[in-house]
Amino acid sequence: MKHTKVKDLLNSTQTLHEVNAKGWVRTFRNNQFIALNDGSTIHNIQCVVDFENTPEATLKRITTGAAVSVTGTLVESKGAGQKFEIQVSKLEILGDSDAEKFPMQPKKHSLEFLRENAHLRVRTNAFGAIMRVRSVLAFAVHQYFQEKGFVYVNTPVITGADAEGAGEMFQVTSLPLDNLPKTEDGAIDYKKDFFGKHTNLTVSGQLEGEAFAMALGQIYTFGPTFRAENSNTSRHLAEFWMIEPEVAFNDLHDNMDLAEDFIQYVIKYTVDKCADDLKFLEGRLLEEEKSKPQAERSEMALLEKLNFVLENNFKRVSYTEAIDILKNSTPNKKKKFNYIIEEWGADLQSEHERFLVEKHFKSPVIVYDYPANIKSFYMRLNEDGKTVGAMDILFPGIGEIVGGSQREERLDVLLEKMKVIGIDEEELWWYLDTRRFGSAIHSGFGLGFERLVLFVTGMTNIRDVIPFPRTPGSAEF
Amino acid sequence: MKHTKVKDLLNSTQTLHEVNAKGWVRTFRNNQFIALNDGSTIHNIQCVVDFENTPEATLKRITTGAAVSVTGTLVESKGAGQKFEIQVSKLEILGDSDAEKFPMQPKKHSLEFLRENAHLRVRTNAFGAIMRVRSVLAFAVHQYFQEKGFVYVNTPVITGADAEGAGEMFQVTSLPLDNLPKTEDGAIDYKKDFFGKHTNLTVSGQLEGEAFAMALGQIYTFGPTFRAENSNTSRHLAEFWMIEPEVAFNDLHDNMDLAEDFIQYVIKYTVDKCADDLKFLEGRLLEEEKSKPQAERSEMALLEKLNFVLENNFKRVSYTEAIDILKNSTPNKKKKFNYIIEEWGADLQSEHERFLVEKHFKSPVIVYDYPANIKSFYMRLNEDGKTVGAMDILFPGIGEIVGGSQREERLDVLLEKMKVIGIDEEELWWYLDTRRFGSAIHSGFGLGFERLVLFVTGMTNIRDVIPFPRTPGSAEF
Repeated sequence: MKHTKVKDLLNSTQTLHEVNAKGWVRTFRNNQFIALNDGSTIHNIQCVVDFENTPEATLKRITTGAAVSVTGTLVESKGAGQKFEIQVSKLEILGDSDAEKFPMQPKKHSLEFLRENAHLRVRTNAFGAIMRVRSVLAFAVHQYFQEKGFVYVNTPVITGADAEGAGEMFQVTSLPLDNLPKTEDGAIDYKKDFFGKHTNLTVSGQLEGEAFAMALGQIYTFGPTFRAENSNTSRHLAEFWMIEPEVAFNDLHDNMDLAEDFIQYVIKYTVDKCADDLKFLEGRLLEEEKSKPQAERSEMALLEKLNFVLENNFKRVSYTEAIDILKNSTPNKKKKFNYIIEEWGADLQSEHERFLVEKHFKSPVIVYDYPANIKSFYMRLNEDGKTVGAMDILFPGIGEIVGGSQREERLDVLLEKMKVIGIDEEELWWYLDTRRFGSAIHSGFGLGFERLVLFVTGMTNIRDVIPFPRTPGSAEF
Repeated sequence: MKHTKVKDLLNSTQTLHEVNAKGWVRTFRNNQFIALNDGSTIHNIQCVVDFENTPEATLKRITTGAAVSVTGTLVESKGAGQKFEIQVSKLEILGDSDAEKFPMQPKKHSLEFLRENAHLRVRTNAFGAIMRVRSVLAFAVHQYFQEKGFVYVNTPVITGADAEGAGEMFQVTSLPLDNLPKTEDGAIDYKKDFFGKHTNLTVSGQLEGEAFAMALGQIYTFGPTFRAENSNTSRHLAEFWMIEPEVAFNDLHDNMDLAEDFIQYVIKYTVDKCADDLKFLEGRLLEEEKSKPQAERSEMALLEKLNFVLENNFKRVSYTEAIDILKNSTPNKKKKFNYIIEEWGADLQSEHERFLVEKHFKSPVIVYDYPANIKSFYMRLNEDGKTVGAMDILFPGIGEIVGGSQREERLDVLLEKMKVIGIDEEELWWYLDTRRFGSAIHSGFGLGFERLVLFVTGMTNIRDVIPFPRTPGSAEF
């Protein structure tokens, strides 16, 4: 008979005469009670084995991690904590799990140990919940943009451009490294490489996205991006997923409105769809924080924090205002910041962003109109001649979650900027074409998907919200 | 005032006193009629300029490709072909487009020329339509799986494994190629590379997907995959997007049911949502085929073909039956095939697949239970000891669109197979863990997304259904 998902069994509106469930044993108590999970929900279904009529040899094989098929009756449970349970009439061991060897024992494991077993950690409650939440968040991203008529664009992963300047890039090659072809003057002959040129992994789909926005009006990307930076932190990955919408005719303020509406939509969607998983993760976080000093614990529980973001507008503050706030702040005056803010033009460090978000505004914050010389070449120069229409969204505990801008649509201004910082016109000929033919104002932003998943799940290390993290020295699996 | 999308203006239920539209000029006729497009729909809105009261200098700037903003009244159109048009009261040129230089002239361009201008081709009717259809198809993929409770899994793009054997791989490195670090014995010292080992771009997320299916039950991937194969054909890309569902407890026949239901769902969703774009693409195909000899033209028009797939079950035929059909076929007997089918065990070539689909069954075909020695190591060995539970779905005009299998869940059988073909156990330790701990039958398949887009749009070259194609010698943009 066809098996029924555990989630559907637990949500049943009635007892059922004969059901079959398949899944993995989480625990087996008293030689009688199997807690069975199949990944469809955080909850296990209790399966009551008729141990008197089950061979001892079979009972011994019901171990944590084993795959089993149980057939029986779905009855109301007398035990606490579940509405239904299965009275098992037939039990089949599908795949054994040696209790001595199975790494995912029913006990607390360190997150580091779980990372080393990324192929199995998803069989734990926490990682099952995280991965379901991640999936629902990803779908919410697509649904938001599609409902609004945005076109999903798959910008290339392998790129011949390396002028974007967003960070260090990985090289992609099919040349034999132990026998590199050389030109007459001894340089590596990239004409012989697969693409006939030097290629890298993309750091952003923005430039290609802009070209498409200047034809389709509203577009978004959602794909992997890469940084070959040796940042061994809890906030950086070498491979991560980025969401980059780009909208023709939007100015910087439209851009902020879009980003805020978007973030609130996807969080609301996920809060609605993943109540059980988020409740579990809220409990996990509370438990984890018990070992921390009071001052380092979160001020709000997970769901309270998510609802706070839904119910409150993000505070919008210009860079100039932010600098004033920081200059006059207690930690700045008392020289508690590592980087003392002395004058306009300083780059904001993580400590400053956290002060603004967590201490001063106690809310997500959008900082906009940054000094031109600390931001990217493609950002639109404001009328003041010294700031650009950039905006960063800062989140509590996460820091920068969104970086965006109105793009420089004026060909002459853009060319001048590229000249000053030394970007070759020839290299970006196609990007400049968008300014040569029917240019118009447009804006967009990038949101690092894993940082959003961090925020929503309450996890603190970005390696724990992506299936198989890629970091310096680590590309296992 | 806020602009309204062209799509919404054309779908208006009433005339409107004041509206604003922004977009790009497709054509400008009689110094009076602008065909304006903003990418929200294949249709242009006609904007009637009051040329007597518009400065000559402004009229001259209304050229193909220019970005303009028009304000005026939405009135019923007297002209044929549109319900509404805008009587323009105010016109603003946002961005000029030099009519002499703009590559996308309002005339027929070769597909090759358009590929060289992939950043601008999306401003044509055909490529606008293709990219909207692609986007809707992608969303349908997510919606199908999410509705069924599948978890979206982002498997890694950079991988340390190269045992998958699905094809040639690109190497990813951050080592300086002109100054490679060497070990004492002169080999390249990959310990110094970013990940401390030799890494490649993934050819498939299947193995990681299997590990997740053995915890979450039903998962799917949808991300970029890579082949460093020098295949300069109309069906191959070096970088393409792949969809790979994997389901615990599914056997090969469940797998075929899933694949068929999935393909029918996403095509139906797209036919419903993209009627205008598909109608245009149907016309384009008809036009294109006029230059072909009768025998090479499609038997069905585009929408007829799509509806045929929706209304008819895919024919299922075992490899053994397929070989019998082919052996006794006229082209085989008359030696018209390049590869004559002589006996059981032969690999099916594209010409054989096309014969089965286009001549014999005249329907999508699922061929299953292939000889073990022409298929991958992870496919489940059947009871006969010589075939594996593989299945390929073959589509008219496209050939193989899906390749899938029931996976070998028996550790001993899998190890033996790996040993025979020389795959190192150590390398796939984590994959083997899924068979060591709670193994169970499971199945999945891979669908090359661009081949699906090809089929649905009626295009014939895969380079025309992805924004910026990556092929040998070509990584522009």
